[in-house]
Amino acid sequence: MAIATIKWVRDCARIIDQTKLPNKLEYICCRDVDTMWHAIKRLSVRGAPAIGVAAAFGVLSGIRAFKGQDRGRFVKLVYDTCAYLATSRPTAVNLFNMLARMKAVIARHPQANVDQLNKALHQEAMDIFKEDQKVCRAIGDHGAALIKNGMTALTVCNAGALATVDYGTALGVFYSAQKMGRKFKVFSCETRPLLQGARLTCWELMRAKIDTTLICDNMAATLMRQKKIGIIFAGADRIAANGDAANKIGTYMLAVLAKHHGVPFYIVAPKSTFDLNIKSGAQIPIEERKPEEITHWNGIPAAPRGVKVYNPAFDVTPARLIHGIVTEYGIIRAPYVRNIKNIISRPKETSPGVKVKDL
Amino acid sequence: MAIATIKWVRDCARIIDQTKLPNKLEYICCRDVDTMWHAIKRLSVRGAPAIGVAAAFGVLSGIRAFKGQDRGRFVKLVYDTCAYLATSRPTAVNLFNMLARMKAVIARHPQANVDQLNKALHQEAMDIFKEDQKVCRAIGDHGAALIKNGMTALTVCNAGALATVDYGTALGVFYSAQKMGRKFKVFSCETRPLLQGARLTCWELMRAKIDTTLICDNMAATLMRQKKIGIIFAGADRIAANGDAANKIGTYMLAVLAKHHGVPFYIVAPKSTFDLNIKSGAQIPIEERKPEEITHWNGIPAAPRGVKVYNPAFDVTPARLIHGIVTEYGIIRAPYVRNIKNIISRPKETSPGVKVKDL
Repeated sequence: MAIATIKWVRDCARIIDQTKLPNKLEYICCRDVDTMWHAIKRLSVRGAPAIGVAAAFGVLSGIRAFKGQDRGRFVKLVYDTCAYLATSRPTAVNLFNMLARMKAVIARHPQANVDQLNKALHQEAMDIFKEDQKVCRAIGDHGAALIKNGMTALTVCNAGALATVDYGTALGVFYSAQKMGRKFKVFSCETRPLLQGARLTCWELMRAKIDTTLICDNMAATLMRQKKIGIIFAGADRIAANGDAANKIGTYMLAVLAKHHGVPFYIVAPKSTFDLNIKSGAQIPIEERKPEEITHWNGIPAAPRGVKVYNPAFDVTPARLIHGIVTEYGIIRAPYVRNIKNIISRPKETSPGVKVKDL
Repeated sequence: MAIATIKWVRDCARIIDQTKLPNKLEYICCRDVDTMWHAIKRLSVRGAPAIGVAAAFGVLSGIRAFKGQDRGRFVKLVYDTCAYLATSRPTAVNLFNMLARMKAVIARHPQANVDQLNKALHQEAMDIFKEDQKVCRAIGDHGAALIKNGMTALTVCNAGALATVDYGTALGVFYSAQKMGRKFKVFSCETRPLLQGARLTCWELMRAKIDTTLICDNMAATLMRQKKIGIIFAGADRIAANGDAANKIGTYMLAVLAKHHGVPFYIVAPKSTFDLNIKSGAQIPIEERKPEEITHWNGIPAAPRGVKVYNPAFDVTPARLIHGIVTEYGIIRAPYVRNIKNIISRPKETSPGVKVKDL
């Protein structure tokens, strides 16, 4: 039902080229790791969970052309491929987590030959893919409980089907709510500079017949002042042990505005987005991208030549501004350090103490 | 020294076509009122003070082709022209104020013939033009006192030379500070959807060799959190009797973020921007503009066809979020109702009780 953002098809990783949306629905077949690295780098595939799956599939693409039965050379190729893919983007922790899982396959099979390792790596990548599907549905169902009939929600960037292999995270909440028959509307921030909100979120939600209105990022404050926003959902690229969440630039702004206007602000993200190795958001590396993303449109300058530009791709929202983090295990609320530790480091089917509360 | 944004040249109003900046510096000669109406409507000329002058010059363009000595017909033409120009944009009060001044010329000369009226109207328009020049310099000097060496300021949209006939208002502060030898840097919000910050403010400030960095609007919050912004200056299109200020969409957002981060937020505007007939910002009409400004870039769609769009051109910043209003008489501070009344309705060379204070 959800669009196949990324899929393993006939021995290659097939991804939607999201840089072409909404004008063209085009696919890229990544038959080698270079193609996947560039696809991740230039955001043809993006969104933390989708990047995780893309990384796993990227490893498969990297070992695809391997010939022979030399385990040593094969293992080196797997590690080199993982190291290379890790350089594509610095912020989304799923990328590193999924590469770690692929490398762990090697460690778990010290006696396996090349064919067996190959098979085990394929199995692991497919497991990662299927887990993301399940996780999306669980997240959507937990988050949907927050959406009341008649509500209007706001979202930023694209934490949807196009950011995952299924329902999405923040947008998964809307798909689940729709399935439950809830009536609601969505405002989508266009999300400068790359317009993922305008190009991808509006495209996805309109395709699903969800009532969607596009705004510029600088209009969200006015909507909140007019009391038109009932709740805000944003995805995340990395969440620290204390609940600080890195997400697309503009998310922190929404969290501050939400606090000022008394609007509940939620982060929606799977377990794989948490990085318990880092204590707080201050330690999350923030990717800075090239000036042309801001200064040019379709190759035409929209700013004077040579202007200085600051272009951080992400910002960090401190946990104190977050009402709750919707995960596949339920909604994690403050105190975050304790609750994140309980739920994320010891996952269970349903974690006690984590309840979906009415707002 | 400042660029001639609008000027009466050889019997026509010559304006810079700001929709072409920064890629081309092109002029439009408004030889009839229609050309001026469309130039205002599509923002070839914009910025509250410049619109005021454009309206006055628009009246001159409208009466330019009048033949004969029928005072009745001539007066009707002046009123009709004013009524027509008043429909070009609803938010900037300067437009209405300057049209009112042009109409008042007629009322002040009940016995004058067509030639005399024509001459008096030209005189009034030139007075409006010259007053804006003087006002810009006075505003710049008052505001510059707020800029300390080493400070970094943030601004939005373009309240500069391109928005006035001289120095500008918010940017006039920078030009004055530069003249006084202050060392400072400026961040310019790109100002979606029409990118006046990227296209016009960066262009102007770079031309004046002021250290300028461009950001997307959704990056301002992150800069404030990093303590990189020392002060914020924004223009205004209309200010109510209580100090509520309508300005380009995104200004209110900055004011809320400034409050959260403890950054002083200033409005910079001349007396002509105040509308004491309205009590509060709630009564200021907010222009909504067409969806294509958001959905298209150089004619190429950047959002799905048919998406709903909300595109308010302005927002209202409540007076309680404003540290001070920099005017040609000095800096007006709270309590605004009393101080605005004192200063704006009874202008003097220097108003007592209005002091430029250190932050």
